[in-house]
Amino acid sequence: MSSSNYYDVTTWPVGNPSQDVGEVINSMIADIKCRQTVADASNGGKPGAVIYIPPGDYRLRTQVVIDVSFLRIQGSGHGFTSSSIRFNVPEEEWPDLHELWPGGSRILVDLPLEVDEDESKGAAFYVERNGSPRLSSVEFSDFCIDGLHFKPDGSGMHPENTYVNGKTGIYVASSNDSFRVTGMGFVYLENALTIYHADALSVHDNFIAECGSCIELRGWGQASKISDNLIGAGFRGHSIYAENHGGLLITANNVFPRGASSVRLDGVTRSSVTNNRLHSFYPGMLILGGGSSENLVATNHFLRDHEPWTPFLGIDNGLDDLNGLLCVSGTNNSVIGNHFSQIIDSQSIQPAGATPVIIRLRAGAGNFVSNNHVVAMDVHPKSGDSCFSAQVDALLTTEASVRLSVTSVLVDPESSGNTILDSGSDTQVVADRAANAFRPTPTVGF
Amino acid sequence: MSSSNYYDVTTWPVGNPSQDVGEVINSMIADIKCRQTVADASNGGKPGAVIYIPPGDYRLRTQVVIDVSFLRIQGSGHGFTSSSIRFNVPEEEWPDLHELWPGGSRILVDLPLEVDEDESKGAAFYVERNGSPRLSSVEFSDFCIDGLHFKPDGSGMHPENTYVNGKTGIYVASSNDSFRVTGMGFVYLENALTIYHADALSVHDNFIAECGSCIELRGWGQASKISDNLIGAGFRGHSIYAENHGGLLITANNVFPRGASSVRLDGVTRSSVTNNRLHSFYPGMLILGGGSSENLVATNHFLRDHEPWTPFLGIDNGLDDLNGLLCVSGTNNSVIGNHFSQIIDSQSIQPAGATPVIIRLRAGAGNFVSNNHVVAMDVHPKSGDSCFSAQVDALLTTEASVRLSVTSVLVDPESSGNTILDSGSDTQVVADRAANAFRPTPTVGF
Amino acid sequence: MSSSNYYDVTTWPVGNPSQDVGEVINSMIADIKCRQTVADASNGGKPGAVIYIPPGDYRLRTQVVIDVSFLRIQGSGHGFTSSSIRFNVPEEEWPDLHELWPGGSRILVDLPLEVDEDESKGAAFYVERNGSPRLSSVEFSDFCIDGLHFKPDGSGMHPENTYVNGKTGIYVASSNDSFRVTGMGFVYLENALTIYHADALSVHDNFIAECGSCIELRGWGQASKISDNLIGAGFRGHSIYAENHGGLLITANNVFPRGASSVRLDGVTRSSVTNNRLHSFYPGMLILGGGSSENLVATNHFLRDHEPWTPFLGIDNGLDDLNGLLCVSGTNNSVIGNHFSQIIDSQSIQPAGATPVIIRLRAGAGNFVSNNHVVAMDVHPKSGDSCFSAQVDALLTTEASVRLSVTSVLVDPESSGNTILDSGSDTQVVADRAANAFRPTPTVGF
Repeated sequence: MSSSNYYDVTTWPVGNPSQDVGEVINSMIADIKCRQTVADASNGGKPGAVIYIPPGDYRLRTQVVIDVSFLRIQGSGHGFTSSSIRFNVPEEEWPDLHELWPGGSRILVDLPLEVDEDESKGAAFYVERNGSPRLSSVEFSDFCIDGLHFKPDGSGMHPENTYVNGKTGIYVASSNDSFRVTGMGFVYLENALTIYHADALSVHDNFIAECGSCIELRGWGQASKISDNLIGAGFRGHSIYAENHGGLLITANNVFPRGASSVRLDGVTRSSVTNNRLHSFYPGMLILGGGSSENLVATNHFLRDHEPWTPFLGIDNGLDDLNGLLCVSGTNNSVIGNHFSQIIDSQSIQPAGATPVIIRLRAGAGNFVSNNHVVAMDVHPKSGDSCFSAQVDALLTTEASVRLSVTSVLVDPESSGNTILDSGSDTQVVADRAANAFRPTPTVGF
Repeated sequence: MSSSNYYDVTTWPVGNPSQDVGEVINSMIADIKCRQTVADASNGGKPGAVIYIPPGDYRLRTQVVIDVSFLRIQGSGHGFTSSSIRFNVPEEEWPDLHELWPGGSRILVDLPLEVDEDESKGAAFYVERNGSPRLSSVEFSDFCIDGLHFKPDGSGMHPENTYVNGKTGIYVASSNDSFRVTGMGFVYLENALTIYHADALSVHDNFIAECGSCIELRGWGQASKISDNLIGAGFRGHSIYAENHGGLLITANNVFPRGASSVRLDGVTRSSVTNNRLHSFYPGMLILGGGSSENLVATNHFLRDHEPWTPFLGIDNGLDDLNGLLCVSGTNNSVIGNHFSQIIDSQSIQPAGATPVIIRLRAGAGNFVSNNHVVAMDVHPKSGDSCFSAQVDALLTTEASVRLSVTSVLVDPESSGNTILDSGSDTQVVADRAANAFRPTPTVGF
Repeated sequence: MSSSNYYDVTTWPVGNPSQDVGEVINSMIADIKCRQTVADASNGGKPGAVIYIPPGDYRLRTQVVIDVSFLRIQGSGHGFTSSSIRFNVPEEEWPDLHELWPGGSRILVDLPLEVDEDESKGAAFYVERNGSPRLSSVEFSDFCIDGLHFKPDGSGMHPENTYVNGKTGIYVASSNDSFRVTGMGFVYLENALTIYHADALSVHDNFIAECGSCIELRGWGQASKISDNLIGAGFRGHSIYAENHGGLLITANNVFPRGASSVRLDGVTRSSVTNNRLHSFYPGMLILGGGSSENLVATNHFLRDHEPWTPFLGIDNGLDDLNGLLCVSGTNNSVIGNHFSQIIDSQSIQPAGATPVIIRLRAGAGNFVSNNHVVAMDVHPKSGDSCFSAQVDALLTTEASVRLSVTSVLVDPESSGNTILDSGSDTQVVADRAANAFRPTPTVGF
């Protein structure tokens, strides 16, 4: 219908973008495929297109299915606002609120979901193509995907706090190359971004928060980057998860709570987690599991403190304080130059009376743990206050607290041949000295 | 007047964008508020809008006041050029110049300013809203804000070199969430970007130079990032300043002179200054003040050398060479893996004959200073040359210089319980060995 | 012809953008210069323009010549796909491929090139202006430059694998300030991006692969950044090259093979190579040559393994395994907290039987090499498989291998006064202990 490769959802003749932007976009994709049929018309022929979503509210009742390369879907606003805060404001105060919902170029995910349906069915954008080549250069930029509501999970928790609704923002099912996700907002989705089999993927400068899980790179993949994002998952999920990836660069992200883990890697090798700021309310902030090997974890700032907000008090990820903030089951990893702040109430330690662990080498061999600085404080936090300034106040408090005794590095018998340098005093590092090389951080009078 | 949420300043019926783009944009914001009145129309209703500023010169005589969420103001060009170089070219040569002013999508800030008026009055864009929720997701991208001229400061200095004019680019007065400032250019403003009470702010990939102060995060805030910017403030101000922030990530910035400080943090905790390139003409390049604690300062490159440009010869920030390039008044910070180059003329050291200090721990306790490399050279710079190739030449010169004796780490009596490892030889580190843990960098023959 | 500063190549009256987009864009630039003639019309007058390239295939038969500041050329899609994989698919299978060419907003570089012509003649975009001021704020964003084909190099290699065709994407010949290259795709060019005399340049978040050389900063320059790019050059060229630059920040890049070097710096000083992920099939991954001094190389992940893909088996960069993955000829550099994985077949080592070197200090003095972790494995790779999942499989393999003996640091007699700490055991570091300070990494039982 169009002779151009520029589409605007508000001017397309098929469908009603307010009522079902999914139908509109699928019609555009059909049009692209209808017009771009020749693979080699004068050295080109299938350049793809851009679909523009101006600021506005667009309900999505039909899943968008993308099976063409070089498609960019672009808005003009990531539109995040905290739905979590809003839903926890007493309902009688809602009329006093300036606005109730996220905004920008906003997709309202309203798919008809059956119970126990395949996870991919709940995706607003579903990307898959068989055959060769892999899909290349699909881009999502500068719009908002909003899952609208969470729902009861059977626990009796406020339904809007469960992080459960079966909805996914973008789900990429098949092998892909050079995809980009940039400047997006994701909110109130059980999974924001799930990508299988990624090669040279860039997830850069997005706002992904109040989603069950934020970024999951599944299956396997290589040579990708997750950089410069603001991210915070729910207590069940991961802010960043990757499995069987090589050469992944996770850097310059500011990862805030909650997230069962800030970053969890399974079977990931020769990758970097460097230069991130990580904040969590539970142990297990960064897990290198499943034999993750030869990775570099360097110059990250880890902060673990307590949940300050009433609706989530008592929630945790099930891990006790012996798990460590950083937990490694793998070989030949490097852990260099990280700062760890553990700011907790000693009365809350699990198991009670235990000495909390900061870095735990659980299995594997040959890890190099060097020049990490651990700060641990025993505090009695004033929790239960939901306002922003109180949150900041808690975050800033460093004075009225006393030093907490911790194990800075614990090496299990199943892990050996590690080198631990300047990452804790002689008493703070618990490791078999006959099986691991060790140099304690000097102490005064040394 | 519009039924769409896409606005273009050149086609709007109210006002004249060349004469006063402020009036035009305020009229658009009024239109947005007039049209978007229902907070919950089918789960939406207030998506905000995008206001587009095509490349062009737009004088701003009326302050833009933003009090709606989800507003993006967007141009197509950051438009920086060096006004400083131009104003210091002899006036008789101006007719030979290809162009005289910055460009791109350019706002010419021309507000009627009274002497000693409240600072916020001089802001081109003023952002404030009372009540709940906080403003969310206001975005500024890809345009230029030009303050046009500096003015006499009473010192007798050339008026265009004072960095004083009472003008601010963007001033955010009230609590805010998920704001973005991306791809912008700021030039010849006394303050480029002043933001109070920021939560999850992103200041990313901007060009902010020849402004008195560049980025100031005031009041308090949390979980924000300042990343991947090119920044350079005036001799009075700060390239990056933050107070009472927690979880701030300052990374991957290239901060060039001048700037009284490249980065100054007051009362900032659990934050990161990592992986930046910092260049300054004065001591006090990075100051952690006001009890800034538990921060990570890692893998930054610090270069301090001399002002090479005639118009600013003799100007400094009032700090002598005992202040250190990095000065810490705070507790439990980590300073790991930084490179420091101090390239100065020993004849210029203040106080005369003193041994300059690189890292100074002035007050506090428990800081961890490890694996920092200090290079210090005594040079006799050829100053007074303004051309770009000469500047680069000065920056590249490493040969015809001799090693300068410095104190790599100085720990004041008011700071104790610190750990200093591999950051200077036994003679280069001045600290009470009974109050601080110390391991000297090995020297040849060790 | 236009009264606006917004241009669209598909609606411009001059030329045919499908047949020669170069002619179209040059006509637009002429129009800009024709309309913007007054340097100081009400404090402005030459704001530049944006030229928009919608998604589509645009042949370029005339070189675009840019000699105005504040010009942004912008598309809606970086459009990368692997031409290399496609050209190595048997031709009889091409009809089964979904698409054959890159896409997005795609420039097909089809300049008439003579043999041995000056390199700049082969540039799709040529940028140069004499006089003052330097060109400022030229921006390239979000489009694709495709060189289409490589050509025979006389070696008998498949012509599409030679990385030779005399074509350059963007060539900046004269001094420039505050340029930006963002969100671009470059493919099948002999040189993607060649920039002379850059000041405060930003090359950010691009996809530059399957080009002979990717980013070359030539001549001299300062205060620039190359950040957050996905990059991979051909076996002859460099992924990132810079000469005589000061204050360059190279960070957060994911650099994949091939590339004779991942990063090569000649005469570069006071710059940073930090926080990158580097992967190569040859030694000489990062070379600090030509007296490069006072640079910081920190928290990078280096992986060197073997070429897995049949078409390039037997190709190398001519350097043997004694050159090191990181090779330094220069003074006062810092090499801190890097991870090195060397995963090679011991049968392939050159010279045969040699002990491979990881870090080599070849000439200079005063370098600080601290806390680097070297992992070296002897493997028998299954090569010859071209599919993506097999590549990832090779990248992930860490198990069935045995440790390989390496020299972690080799200091030549021509380099002295270096400090080497915790970067290898006593036997792994080969250096004159009387001329260099050395502390071995502790080993078990130490």
